[in-house]
Amino acid sequence: MDIVEHISSIPLFEGLSRGELEELSLIVDDLTVVKGEAIFLEGDDGNGFYVVISGKVKIFKVSWEGKEQILHIFGPGEPFGEVPVFGGKQFPASSEALEKGRVFFFPREDFSALIKKNPELALNLLAVLSKRLRRFASLIENLSLKEVPGRLAAYLLYLRGSGKETAELELDISKGQLASLLGTIPETLSRIWGKMSNGGFIESEGSRIRIMDLQGLEGLAEGEIRL
Amino acid sequence: MDIVEHISSIPLFEGLSRGELEELSLIVDDLTVVKGEAIFLEGDDGNGFYVVISGKVKIFKVSWEGKEQILHIFGPGEPFGEVPVFGGKQFPASSEALEKGRVFFFPREDFSALIKKNPELALNLLAVLSKRLRRFASLIENLSLKEVPGRLAAYLLYLRGSGKETAELELDISKGQLASLLGTIPETLSRIWGKMSNGGFIESEGSRIRIMDLQGLEGLAEGEIRL
Repeated sequence: MDIVEHISSIPLFEGLSRGELEELSLIVDDLTVVKGEAIFLEGDDGNGFYVVISGKVKIFKVSWEGKEQILHIFGPGEPFGEVPVFGGKQFPASSEALEKGRVFFFPREDFSALIKKNPELALNLLAVLSKRLRRFASLIENLSLKEVPGRLAAYLLYLRGSGKETAELELDISKGQLASLLGTIPETLSRIWGKMSNGGFIESEGSRIRIMDLQGLEGLAEGEIRL
Repeated sequence: MDIVEHISSIPLFEGLSRGELEELSLIVDDLTVVKGEAIFLEGDDGNGFYVVISGKVKIFKVSWEGKEQILHIFGPGEPFGEVPVFGGKQFPASSEALEKGRVFFFPREDFSALIKKNPELALNLLAVLSKRLRRFASLIENLSLKEVPGRLAAYLLYLRGSGKETAELELDISKGQLASLLGTIPETLSRIWGKMSNGGFIESEGSRIRIMDLQGLEGLAEGEIRL
Protein backbone atom coordinates (compact mmCIF):
# COMPACT_ATOMS: atom_id res chain seq x y z
CA MET A 1 0.00 0.00 0.00
CA ASP A 2 1.39 3.40 -0.83
CA ILE A 3 1.14 6.42 1.45
CA VAL A 4 -1.96 7.88 -0.23
CA GLU A 5 -3.79 4.57 0.31
CA HIS A 6 -2.87 4.58 4.00
CA ILE A 7 -3.97 8.19 4.40
CA SER A 8 -7.27 7.58 2.65
CA SER A 9 -8.12 4.86 5.18
CA ILE A 10 -7.68 7.22 8.17
CA PRO A 11 -11.18 8.21 9.42
CA LEU A 12 -9.99 11.75 10.22
CA PHE A 13 -9.46 12.37 6.52
CA GLU A 14 -12.87 11.13 5.40
CA GLY A 15 -14.45 13.46 2.88
CA LEU A 16 -11.18 14.74 1.41
CA SER A 17 -10.76 14.59 -2.37
CA ARG A 18 -8.11 12.48 -4.09
CA GLY A 19 -6.15 15.67 -4.77
CA GLU A 20 -6.20 16.66 -1.11
CA LEU A 21 -5.12 13.19 -0.01
CA GLU A 22 -2.21 13.46 -2.42
CA GLU A 23 -1.37 16.88 -0.99
CA LEU A 24 -1.30 15.32 2.49
CA SER A 25 0.93 12.49 1.29
CA LEU A 26 3.54 15.07 0.30
CA ILE A 27 3.77 16.60 3.77
CA VAL A 28 3.71 13.36 5.78
CA ASP A 29 6.72 11.96 7.62
CA ASP A 30 6.67 8.15 7.61
CA LEU A 31 8.15 6.87 10.90
CA THR A 32 9.01 3.38 12.09
CA VAL A 33 8.89 2.86 15.86
CA VAL A 34 10.15 0.00 18.01
CA LYS A 35 8.59 -1.33 21.20
CA GLY A 36 9.20 1.03 24.11
CA GLU A 37 10.29 3.91 21.90
CA ALA A 38 9.37 7.39 23.16
CA ILE A 39 7.61 9.34 20.39
CA PHE A 40 7.39 12.57 22.38
CA LEU A 41 7.71 13.58 26.02
CA GLU A 42 5.42 15.77 28.12
CA GLY A 43 6.62 19.36 27.85
CA ASP A 44 8.26 18.87 24.43
CA ASP A 45 7.34 21.49 21.86
CA GLY A 46 4.84 20.06 19.41
CA ASN A 47 5.05 21.12 15.81
CA GLY A 48 2.65 18.63 14.32
CA PHE A 49 0.52 15.60 15.13
CA TYR A 50 0.62 11.86 14.55
CA VAL A 51 -1.56 9.03 13.28
CA VAL A 52 -0.95 5.36 14.14
CA ILE A 53 -0.65 3.26 10.97
CA SER A 54 0.26 -0.04 12.62
CA GLY A 55 1.02 -1.08 16.19
CA LYS A 56 -0.19 0.59 19.38
CA VAL A 57 0.78 3.78 21.18
CA LYS A 58 0.12 4.80 24.77
CA ILE A 59 -0.31 8.37 26.00
CA PHE A 60 0.58 8.74 29.66
CA LYS A 61 1.62 10.93 32.55
CA VAL A 62 4.23 9.99 35.18
CA SER A 63 4.35 11.30 38.75
CA TRP A 64 7.50 12.44 40.50
CA GLU A 65 7.68 9.03 42.23
CA GLY A 66 7.43 7.21 38.89
CA LYS A 67 3.79 6.12 39.10
CA GLU A 68 2.24 6.06 35.65
CA GLN A 69 -1.29 6.96 34.57
CA ILE A 70 -2.25 5.97 31.02
CA LEU A 71 -4.63 8.49 29.43
CA HIS A 72 -5.21 6.67 26.12
CA ILE A 73 -4.09 3.69 24.10
CA PHE A 74 -4.38 4.32 20.37
CA GLY A 75 -4.34 1.81 17.50
CA PRO A 76 -4.33 1.94 13.67
CA GLY A 77 -6.13 4.94 12.15
CA GLU A 78 -6.22 6.97 15.36
CA PRO A 79 -4.61 10.43 15.60
CA PHE A 80 -2.64 11.51 18.68
CA GLY A 81 -0.60 14.45 19.92
CA GLU A 82 -2.88 17.00 18.23
CA VAL A 83 -3.39 19.26 21.27
CA PRO A 84 -0.28 21.49 20.64
CA VAL A 85 -1.30 21.94 17.00
CA PHE A 86 -4.28 24.10 17.98
CA GLY A 87 -3.84 25.24 21.56
CA GLY A 88 -0.65 25.96 23.48
CA LYS A 89 2.71 24.78 22.35
CA GLN A 90 3.77 21.82 24.45
CA PHE A 91 2.59 18.23 24.65
CA PRO A 92 0.48 17.81 27.81
CA ALA A 93 1.55 14.15 28.16
CA SER A 94 4.12 11.66 26.89
CA SER A 95 3.73 8.95 24.25
CA GLU A 96 5.46 5.62 23.76
CA ALA A 97 5.10 2.78 21.25
CA LEU A 98 3.72 -0.36 22.93
CA GLU A 99 4.92 -2.53 20.05
CA LYS A 100 6.81 -2.29 16.77
CA GLY A 101 4.82 -0.18 14.35
CA ARG A 102 4.48 2.63 11.91
CA VAL A 103 3.39 6.19 12.60
CA PHE A 104 2.68 9.11 10.24
CA PHE A 105 3.66 12.62 11.33
CA PHE A 106 1.87 15.67 9.87
CA PRO A 107 3.65 19.04 10.35
CA ARG A 108 1.47 21.76 11.84
CA GLU A 109 1.82 24.52 9.30
CA ASP A 110 1.05 22.55 6.17
CA PHE A 111 -1.83 20.94 7.98
CA SER A 112 -3.35 24.22 9.23
CA ALA A 113 -3.24 25.55 5.69
CA LEU A 114 -5.18 22.49 4.52
CA ILE A 115 -7.80 22.95 7.25
CA LYS A 116 -8.42 26.53 6.20
CA LYS A 117 -9.22 25.33 2.71
CA ASN A 118 -11.25 22.37 3.92
CA PRO A 119 -13.97 22.82 6.55
CA GLU A 120 -14.88 19.10 6.29
CA LEU A 121 -11.48 18.28 7.76
CA ALA A 122 -12.06 20.75 10.60
CA LEU A 123 -15.41 19.16 11.41
CA ASN A 124 -13.79 15.70 11.46
CA LEU A 125 -11.14 17.00 13.84
CA LEU A 126 -13.75 18.63 16.06
CA ALA A 127 -15.49 15.24 16.24
CA VAL A 128 -12.21 13.54 17.21
CA LEU A 129 -11.48 16.06 19.99
CA SER A 130 -15.08 15.91 21.24
CA LYS A 131 -14.91 12.14 21.47
CA ARG A 132 -11.67 12.46 23.39
CA LEU A 133 -13.21 14.98 25.82
CA ARG A 134 -16.07 12.56 26.38
CA ARG A 135 -13.62 9.74 27.10
CA PHE A 136 -11.65 12.00 29.49
CA ALA A 137 -14.83 12.97 31.35
CA SER A 138 -15.54 9.30 31.96
CA LEU A 139 -11.94 8.62 32.98
CA ILE A 140 -12.17 11.46 35.52
CA GLU A 141 -15.46 10.03 36.76
CA ASN A 142 -13.79 6.63 37.12
CA LEU A 143 -10.81 7.97 39.03
CA SER A 144 -12.71 10.34 41.26
CA LEU A 145 -16.08 8.78 41.87
CA LYS A 146 -15.57 5.03 41.46
CA GLU A 147 -13.71 2.35 43.36
CA VAL A 148 -11.46 0.05 41.33
CA PRO A 149 -14.15 -2.67 40.79
CA GLY A 150 -16.48 -0.04 39.32
CA ARG A 151 -13.67 1.25 37.07
CA LEU A 152 -12.89 -2.25 35.80
CA ALA A 153 -16.58 -2.96 35.16
CA ALA A 154 -16.96 0.37 33.33
CA TYR A 155 -13.89 -0.42 31.21
CA LEU A 156 -15.20 -3.87 30.25
CA LEU A 157 -18.54 -2.32 29.26
CA TYR A 158 -16.64 0.29 27.23
CA LEU A 159 -14.70 -2.48 25.43
CA ARG A 160 -17.95 -4.27 24.70
CA GLY A 161 -19.29 -1.12 23.04
CA SER A 162 -22.88 0.00 23.04
CA GLY A 163 -25.72 -1.75 21.29
CA LYS A 164 -23.71 -4.89 20.56
CA GLU A 165 -25.03 -8.30 21.46
CA THR A 166 -21.69 -9.99 22.00
CA ALA A 167 -20.56 -11.15 25.41
CA GLU A 168 -17.05 -12.03 24.19
CA LEU A 169 -14.27 -9.48 24.58
CA GLU A 170 -10.62 -9.48 23.68
CA LEU A 171 -8.39 -7.51 26.04
CA ASP A 172 -5.75 -6.12 23.72
CA ILE A 173 -3.46 -4.61 26.35
CA SER A 174 -1.49 -6.28 29.14
CA LYS A 175 -2.84 -6.50 32.69
CA GLY A 176 -0.12 -4.08 33.80
CA GLN A 177 -1.23 -1.52 31.24
CA LEU A 178 -4.85 -2.05 32.22
CA ALA A 179 -3.94 -1.38 35.86
CA SER A 180 -2.27 1.89 34.89
CA LEU A 181 -5.24 2.88 32.72
CA LEU A 182 -7.57 2.29 35.69
CA GLY A 183 -5.33 4.22 38.07
CA THR A 184 -4.40 1.23 40.20
CA ILE A 185 -1.59 -1.34 40.63
CA PRO A 186 -1.43 -4.84 39.08
CA GLU A 187 -1.83 -6.58 42.47
CA THR A 188 -5.11 -4.78 43.21
CA LEU A 189 -6.36 -5.43 39.69
CA SER A 190 -5.60 -9.17 40.00
CA ARG A 191 -7.43 -9.39 43.29
CA ILE A 192 -10.52 -7.67 41.87
CA TRP A 193 -10.34 -9.69 38.66
CA GLY A 194 -10.45 -12.86 40.83
CA LYS A 195 -13.42 -11.56 42.81
CA MET A 196 -15.31 -10.70 39.62
CA SER A 197 -14.69 -14.20 38.25
CA ASN A 198 -15.68 -15.88 41.52
CA GLY A 199 -18.75 -13.66 41.72
CA GLY A 200 -19.92 -14.92 38.32
CA PHE A 201 -19.65 -11.55 36.57
CA ILE A 202 -17.02 -12.63 34.03
CA GLU A 203 -15.07 -15.65 32.85
CA SER A 204 -11.65 -15.26 31.37
CA GLU A 205 -8.89 -17.25 29.74
CA GLY A 206 -5.76 -15.33 28.88
CA SER A 207 -6.83 -12.20 27.08
CA ARG A 208 -10.30 -13.53 26.22
CA ILE A 209 -13.11 -12.41 28.51
CA ARG A 210 -16.72 -13.52 28.53
CA ILE A 211 -19.35 -11.37 30.22
CA MET A 212 -21.54 -13.75 32.26
CA ASP A 213 -23.71 -11.22 34.09
CA LEU A 214 -24.20 -8.04 32.08
CA GLN A 215 -26.70 -6.49 34.49
CA GLY A 216 -24.39 -7.22 37.41
CA LEU A 217 -21.49 -5.61 35.59
CA GLU A 218 -23.59 -2.52 34.89
CA GLY A 219 -24.55 -2.39 38.56
CA LEU A 220 -20.86 -2.56 39.56
CA ALA A 221 -19.99 0.21 37.09
CA GLU A 222 -22.77 2.42 38.44
CA GLY A 223 -21.85 1.73 42.05
CA GLU A 224 -25.23 0.14 42.82
CA ILE A 225 -23.60 -3.22 43.52
CA ARG A 226 -20.41 -3.79 45.52
CA LEU A 227 -18.06 -6.74 45.08
CA MET B 1 -25.26 46.20 25.07
CA ASP B 2 -27.17 44.45 22.32
CA ILE B 3 -26.75 40.79 21.39
CA VAL B 4 -24.30 41.46 18.54
CA GLU B 5 -22.04 43.40 20.94
CA HIS B 6 -22.07 40.52 23.42
CA ILE B 7 -21.31 37.98 20.69
CA SER B 8 -18.46 40.06 19.31
CA SER B 9 -16.75 40.02 22.72
CA ILE B 10 -16.73 36.18 22.90
CA PRO B 11 -13.17 34.97 22.12
CA LEU B 12 -14.53 31.94 20.23
CA PHE B 13 -15.96 34.26 17.60
CA GLU B 14 -12.79 36.28 17.06
CA GLY B 15 -12.10 36.83 13.39
CA LEU B 16 -15.74 36.76 12.27
CA SER B 17 -17.00 39.62 10.15
CA ARG B 18 -19.73 42.01 11.27
CA GLY B 19 -22.14 40.24 8.91
CA GLU B 20 -21.33 36.83 10.41
CA LEU B 21 -21.76 38.16 13.96
CA GLU B 22 -25.16 39.48 12.93
CA GLU B 23 -26.01 36.10 11.44
CA LEU B 24 -25.10 34.49 14.79
CA SER B 25 -27.23 37.00 16.70
CA LEU B 26 -30.26 35.77 14.75
CA ILE B 27 -29.85 32.14 15.80
CA VAL B 28 -28.98 32.74 19.45
CA ASP B 29 -31.31 31.95 22.34
CA ASP B 30 -30.85 34.45 25.18
CA LEU B 31 -31.38 32.67 28.52
CA THR B 32 -31.56 33.94 32.08
CA VAL B 33 -30.52 31.47 34.77
CA VAL B 34 -30.93 31.57 38.53
CA LYS B 35 -28.52 30.22 41.13
CA GLY B 36 -28.70 26.42 41.32
CA GLU B 37 -30.59 26.08 38.04
CA ALA B 38 -29.76 22.98 35.99
CA ILE B 39 -28.93 23.97 32.41
CA PHE B 40 -28.59 20.39 31.17
CA LEU B 41 -28.16 16.98 32.73
CA GLU B 42 -25.70 14.23 31.87
CA GLY B 43 -27.31 11.95 29.28
CA ASP B 44 -29.63 14.65 27.91
CA ASP B 45 -29.64 14.99 24.14
CA GLY B 46 -27.62 18.01 23.11
CA ASN B 47 -28.77 20.03 20.13
CA GLY B 48 -26.52 23.03 20.53
CA PHE B 49 -23.97 24.61 22.81
CA TYR B 50 -23.79 27.48 25.29
CA VAL B 51 -21.67 30.51 26.13
CA VAL B 52 -21.66 32.18 29.56
CA ILE B 53 -22.45 35.91 29.23
CA SER B 54 -22.61 36.71 32.94
CA GLY B 55 -22.38 34.63 36.12
CA LYS B 56 -20.66 31.26 36.56
CA VAL B 57 -21.54 27.74 35.49
CA LYS B 58 -20.18 24.45 36.80
CA ILE B 59 -19.85 21.24 34.78
CA PHE B 60 -19.92 18.16 36.97
CA LYS B 61 -20.50 14.44 37.37
CA VAL B 62 -22.29 12.79 40.28
CA SER B 63 -21.72 9.26 41.54
CA TRP B 64 -24.47 6.84 42.50
CA GLU B 65 -23.88 7.77 46.16
CA GLY B 66 -24.23 11.48 45.41
CA LYS B 67 -20.54 12.42 45.51
CA GLU B 68 -19.85 15.23 43.08
CA GLN B 69 -16.76 15.84 40.91
CA ILE B 70 -16.56 19.25 39.25
CA LEU B 71 -14.90 19.07 35.81
CA HIS B 72 -14.89 22.78 34.99
CA ILE B 73 -16.12 26.13 36.24
CA PHE B 74 -16.80 28.57 33.39
CA GLY B 75 -17.21 32.34 33.50
CA PRO B 76 -18.13 35.14 31.05
CA GLY B 77 -17.08 34.51 27.44
CA GLU B 78 -16.47 30.79 27.88
CA PRO B 79 -18.36 28.18 25.82
CA PHE B 80 -19.65 24.95 27.35
CA GLY B 81 -21.66 21.88 26.36
CA GLU B 82 -20.12 21.74 22.89
CA VAL B 83 -19.17 18.03 22.95
CA PRO B 84 -22.54 16.73 21.62
CA VAL B 85 -22.46 19.27 18.79
CA PHE B 86 -19.59 17.44 17.10
CA GLY B 87 -19.30 13.96 18.54
CA GLY B 88 -22.02 11.72 19.93
CA LYS B 89 -25.41 12.97 20.90
CA GLN B 90 -25.63 13.21 24.67
CA PHE B 91 -24.05 15.52 27.20
CA PRO B 92 -21.21 13.65 28.99
CA ALA B 93 -21.77 15.65 32.22
CA SER B 94 -24.30 17.96 33.89
CA SER B 95 -24.24 21.74 34.20
CA GLU B 96 -25.66 24.10 36.78
CA ALA B 97 -25.59 27.88 37.29
CA LEU B 98 -23.53 28.82 40.37
CA GLU B 99 -25.11 32.26 40.50
CA LYS B 100 -27.72 34.36 38.71
CA GLY B 101 -26.59 35.02 35.17
CA ARG B 102 -27.15 35.05 31.47
CA VAL B 103 -26.31 32.34 28.97
CA PHE B 104 -26.50 32.28 25.17
CA PHE B 105 -27.56 29.08 23.43
CA PHE B 106 -26.50 28.38 19.82
CA PRO B 107 -28.46 25.63 18.00
CA ARG B 108 -26.30 22.97 16.38
CA GLU B 109 -27.53 23.04 12.81
CA ASP B 110 -27.29 26.76 12.17
CA PHE B 111 -23.91 26.77 13.83
CA SER B 112 -22.52 23.85 11.78
CA ALA B 113 -23.59 25.64 8.62
CA LEU B 114 -21.66 28.71 9.75
CA ILE B 115 -18.53 26.64 10.48
CA LYS B 116 -18.58 25.17 7.00
CA LYS B 117 -18.48 28.67 5.58
CA ASN B 118 -15.90 29.90 8.06
CA PRO B 119 -12.71 27.91 8.73
CA GLU B 120 -11.50 30.62 11.16
CA LEU B 121 -14.36 29.69 13.47
CA ALA B 122 -13.42 26.01 13.23
CA LEU B 123 -9.81 26.79 14.15
CA ASN B 124 -11.00 28.84 17.16
CA LEU B 125 -13.15 25.93 18.27
CA LEU B 126 -10.28 23.46 17.82
CA ALA B 127 -8.19 25.73 20.07
CA VAL B 128 -10.95 25.75 22.71
CA LEU B 129 -11.29 21.97 22.70
CA SER B 130 -7.50 21.50 22.75
CA LYS B 131 -7.19 23.76 25.77
CA ARG B 132 -9.92 21.77 27.45
CA LEU B 133 -8.14 18.47 26.72
CA ARG B 134 -4.98 19.92 28.21
CA ARG B 135 -6.90 20.95 31.33
CA PHE B 136 -8.48 17.47 31.59
CA ALA B 137 -5.08 15.80 31.25
CA SER B 138 -3.84 17.79 34.22
CA LEU B 139 -7.01 17.09 36.21
CA ILE B 140 -6.50 13.36 35.59
CA GLU B 141 -2.88 13.70 36.67
CA ASN B 142 -4.04 15.47 39.82
CA LEU B 143 -6.63 12.84 40.70
CA SER B 144 -4.53 9.83 39.84
CA LEU B 145 -0.96 10.76 40.61
CA LYS B 146 -1.11 13.44 43.29
CA GLU B 147 -2.19 13.56 46.90
CA VAL B 148 -4.59 16.36 47.90
CA PRO B 149 -1.81 18.81 49.00
CA GLY B 150 -0.18 18.45 45.58
CA ARG B 151 -3.55 19.00 43.87
CA LEU B 152 -4.22 22.15 45.88
CA ALA B 153 -0.73 23.49 45.17
CA ALA B 154 -1.15 22.74 41.45
CA TYR B 155 -4.51 24.51 41.44
CA LEU B 156 -3.10 27.62 43.13
CA LEU B 157 -0.27 27.72 40.59
CA TYR B 158 -2.85 27.34 37.80
CA LEU B 159 -4.84 30.29 39.24
CA ARG B 160 -1.68 32.35 39.37
CA GLY B 161 -1.12 31.72 35.68
CA SER B 162 2.23 31.36 33.99
CA GLY B 163 4.76 34.11 33.56
CA LYS B 164 2.99 36.50 35.94
CA GLU B 165 4.84 38.19 38.74
CA THR B 166 1.90 38.52 41.10
CA ALA B 167 1.74 36.60 44.36
CA GLU B 168 -1.83 37.69 45.09
CA LEU B 169 -4.69 35.43 44.09
CA GLU B 170 -8.43 35.73 44.36
CA LEU B 171 -10.26 32.43 44.85
CA ASP B 172 -13.52 32.99 42.98
CA ILE B 173 -15.28 29.79 44.00
CA SER B 174 -16.36 28.56 47.44
CA LYS B 175 -14.20 26.18 49.48
CA GLY B 176 -16.85 23.49 48.99
CA GLN B 177 -16.64 23.87 45.22
CA LEU B 178 -12.85 23.85 45.39
CA ALA B 179 -12.96 20.58 47.35
CA SER B 180 -15.16 19.01 44.68
CA LEU B 181 -12.90 20.31 41.90
CA LEU B 182 -9.89 18.71 43.64
CA GLY B 183 -11.73 15.42 44.19
CA THR B 184 -11.80 15.68 47.98
CA ILE B 185 -14.12 16.72 50.81
CA PRO B 186 -14.26 20.17 52.53
CA GLU B 187 -12.88 18.78 55.84
CA THR B 188 -9.74 17.40 54.17
CA LEU B 189 -9.29 20.60 52.20
CA SER B 190 -9.53 22.75 55.37
CA ARG B 191 -6.97 20.60 57.15
CA ILE B 192 -4.52 20.88 54.26
CA TRP B 193 -5.22 24.59 53.85
CA GLY B 194 -4.25 25.03 57.51
CA LYS B 195 -1.06 23.01 57.07
CA MET B 196 -0.06 25.05 54.03
CA SER B 197 -0.60 28.29 55.96
CA ASN B 198 1.29 27.04 58.99
CA GLY B 199 4.07 25.76 56.74
CA GLY B 200 4.54 29.26 55.31
CA PHE B 201 3.50 28.36 51.77
CA ILE B 202 0.49 30.68 51.63
CA GLU B 203 -1.32 33.34 53.63
CA SER B 204 -5.03 33.82 53.22
CA GLU B 205 -7.84 36.05 54.34
CA GLY B 206 -11.29 35.14 53.11
CA SER B 207 -11.03 34.54 49.39
CA ARG B 208 -7.71 36.41 49.04
CA ILE B 209 -4.59 34.27 48.95
CA ARG B 210 -0.97 35.37 48.96
CA ILE B 211 1.73 32.98 47.77
CA MET B 212 4.58 33.24 50.30
CA ASP B 213 6.83 30.46 49.04
CA LEU B 214 6.49 29.93 45.30
CA GLN B 215 9.28 27.37 45.04
CA GLY B 216 7.82 25.40 47.92
CA LEU B 217 4.41 25.41 46.27
CA GLU B 218 5.95 24.16 43.02
CA GLY B 219 7.71 21.42 44.99
CA LEU B 220 4.41 20.38 46.57
CA ALA B 221 2.67 20.35 43.18
CA GLU B 222 5.43 18.19 41.70
CA GLY B 223 5.46 15.82 44.67
CA GLU B 224 9.07 16.66 45.55
CA ILE B 225 8.03 18.12 48.88
CA ARG B 226 5.48 16.68 51.29
CA LEU B 227 3.43 18.66 53.78
